[in-house]
Amino acid sequence: MKKLAYTLLCLACVALFLTAAYAQFSKPEDAVKYRKAAMTLIGHHFGRMASVVKGQQPYVRADFSGDAELVERLSKLSWEAFMVPGTAQGDTHLKPEALSEKSKFIEAGQKFETEISKLVSAANGDNFGAVKDQFGEVAKSCQGCHRQFRAG
Amino acid sequence: MKKLAYTLLCLACVALFLTAAYAQFSKPEDAVKYRKAAMTLIGHHFGRMASVVKGQQPYVRADFSGDAELVERLSKLSWEAFMVPGTAQGDTHLKPEALSEKSKFIEAGQKFETEISKLVSAANGDNFGAVKDQFGEVAKSCQGCHRQFRAG
Repeated sequence: MKKLAYTLLCLACVALFLTAAYAQFSKPEDAVKYRKAAMTLIGHHFGRMASVVKGQQPYVRADFSGDAELVERLSKLSWEAFMVPGTAQGDTHLKPEALSEKSKFIEAGQKFETEISKLVSAANGDNFGAVKDQFGEVAKSCQGCHRQFRAG
Repeated sequence: MKKLAYTLLCLACVALFLTAAYAQFSKPEDAVKYRKAAMTLIGHHFGRMASVVKGQQPYVRADFSGDAELVERLSKLSWEAFMVPGTAQGDTHLKPEALSEKSKFIEAGQKFETEISKLVSAANGDNFGAVKDQFGEVAKSCQGCHRQFRAG
């Protein structure tokens, strides 16, 4: 009986959290617009770092570090916007699996958060080899999530 | 003669800076997409703060402060994306004056940067009255720039 009460309490807490999170977006299309905006900025600044890692642009530590810190900040923004019911259809690349397998989706998002945080640490150091290696780990975390939850 | 040399040097530096800035965007539409994304996030988090200032949502200092810090970070992002030639037409609200009167546009952008930085300071303090007052100053800086340089 205690276990049931505990489970019900947990579910109530999750429902409260999700209600608060969804309340940030008055319409589902606002959530889609918001997460697309976050992904556009993440993609742009990821691209800037990629061009440095590939040797197409010179490595300027302050710039690279600034890009990494921005992407880290943005990585912490947008997960609630992916969780809004009814937003895995229409003008979006989100697969319905992100909503039906939320815990796996959140796990994939957290993997990205972890890897980009490690890149920020590396980018504040002096070892460009380590930066390049960790950038590869971030890229893998992007691909891992996109492969499972991004269509097209 | 020295003055002319100095002026030419300044112009060369500006040209170099702008070339580097524009090079971040391989196509004008990429710059438009990027600045729209930044404005979408700024607008969303500004709206969250507005609902607190208006008393529609409770004041939770950590959340308000997080929103203010994010908007401050974003305020430092996007000006170069507004400066790309050919991006004051098509799918944009930018008025051509932003490109033809760049120094005024930059000044209006910097006013926003200054006011949002002051809001971050206020939001880390204990005086909600000061937070509300400074939020009003941020709003004025938005309106000031939009009135001059935003169509529609």
